Amino acid sequence: MADVFDIEDPADPRLDDFRDLNSVDRRPDLPSGKGLVIAEGVLVVQRMLASRFRPRALLGTDRRLGELAADLEGVEVPYYRASAEVMAAAVGFHLNRGVLAAAPRPGELSVDEIIAGSRTVAVLEGVNDHENLGSIFRNAAGLGVDGVLFGTGCADPLYRRAVRVSMGHALLVPYAWAQSWPDDLQVLRDKGFRVLAMTPNPSAPTLASAMAELAGEKVAMMVGAEGPGLKEHTMRSADVRVRIPMSRGTDSLNVATAAALAFYERARLDP
Amino acid sequence: MADVFDIEDPADPRLDDFRDLNSVDRRPDLPSGKGLVIAEGVLVVQRMLASRFRPRALLGTDRRLGELAADLEGVEVPYYRASAEVMAAAVGFHLNRGVLAAAPRPGELSVDEIIAGSRTVAVLEGVNDHENLGSIFRNAAGLGVDGVLFGTGCADPLYRRAVRVSMGHALLVPYAWAQSWPDDLQVLRDKGFRVLAMTPNPSAPTLASAMAELAGEKVAMMVGAEGPGLKEHTMRSADVRVRIPMSRGTDSLNVATAAALAFYERARLDP
Repeated sequence: MADVFDIEDPADPRLDDFRDLNSVDRRPDLPSGKGLVIAEGVLVVQRMLASRFRPRALLGTDRRLGELAADLEGVEVPYYRASAEVMAAAVGFHLNRGVLAAAPRPGELSVDEIIAGSRTVAVLEGVNDHENLGSIFRNAAGLGVDGVLFGTGCADPLYRRAVRVSMGHALLVPYAWAQSWPDDLQVLRDKGFRVLAMTPNPSAPTLASAMAELAGEKVAMMVGAEGPGLKEHTMRSADVRVRIPMSRGTDSLNVATAAALAFYERARLDP
Repeated sequence: MADVFDIEDPADPRLDDFRDLNSVDRRPDLPSGKGLVIAEGVLVVQRMLASRFRPRALLGTDRRLGELAADLEGVEVPYYRASAEVMAAAVGFHLNRGVLAAAPRPGELSVDEIIAGSRTVAVLEGVNDHENLGSIFRNAAGLGVDGVLFGTGCADPLYRRAVRVSMGHALLVPYAWAQSWPDDLQVLRDKGFRVLAMTPNPSAPTLASAMAELAGEKVAMMVGAEGPGLKEHTMRSADVRVRIPMSRGTDSLNVATAAALAFYERARLDP
């Protein structure tokens, strides 16, 4: 069981890992600062406890401590128990999820590590919006994607909002940053992956027909920034370009939705 | 062409349709107040101009006026031209989309109106989040849904954020509010629709198998609030319950994403 410490002074230095969470330049999850990963709410804290991220402190109400009791069994970590008011004063705003966990960033995984044993990976380029990134992790977890590879221009998947929107799956679905982009796509190909690029081009084959041809193979599905999409050079590095059939007069779907459709089609044909 | 009026005083009463957009109790798009529908940005304003919503005023920069010139050809509406600073002072925050249009709410459509000529409709219950609602309209437009029927508990699809997230499709995809819920599902059935309910129940048939059986038929796809899902009584009113196959250990997808998968599967099998 976690060690429980009651905190009544919001200025208590033991809460520093959770202080000023909304501050632009002092927040404890700033990668250039403390670089902590913050989990919010019972469900996300549970997922952090099940992940490779090891919390070094929790801050929460007595009620949330009760809800987490089974998960904290055998976990050596301080639980700073405080009222909602003390928590609000420390973090800088009222937090209705009632519990936070802070974990140091572990070492990054390598591309080889995330593709070993994987059959289906998502590859992202230019996805610089934390909500989209979080949604993509949630969709990846729900729809059978084994790992995520980041090309250039992506936001930090461990940013608090990304972790929250992902429902904690940003901590569970393994990801890696490409060391050389888009050359690292060759690493995927060398391991037997076929690389698909999503495109709005109406002459490209549909997701359904392309995925049908790839059933039984390892697949990497590549999506680009909403709006500009994948860079032309990246697009040329793909093995197949695929499109989502769209109704006339519409432009595009949100990038996380487009990714979800690709993940779904993949799971549909290669469950 | 719109009539252009240069405005230099943010207090000019001609800007009242756009004043204090973020105010909780005075904003001009409050349904219980002026009830205006606000379109933001060139693309959404273009979609408003193409919709049944008739703007009664536009406020924007000279640059956006230029971008909208072709769309405003033959449209009789005042365009209040102002600097970004004057706009910000009137609306209450800096608006980087540079143009707004305000339209009165036209009469609501009836259930009969939205299903006449439709083959595929979405039915929502308890979707009370404006972003999810906006996303559902965007997904509906992109993935071939003809209309949307609202059961109880849904948020206002004409709220500014919903319109913005929908990319203006909340103004274009016809929708109606059920007069009697869930009894109005019978209206759909009487017109030959089969009503599908999305459920997390693992014993339900998959989306793919259920849709395959319904290819060629009219289909209504029903989704409920994220978290609780459809109410039990509503669930019982459906003809078929379907599930999205989910990976082990995950709970659910975002409601707009789940809807997108249903729309996609429908379009895939009945294009």
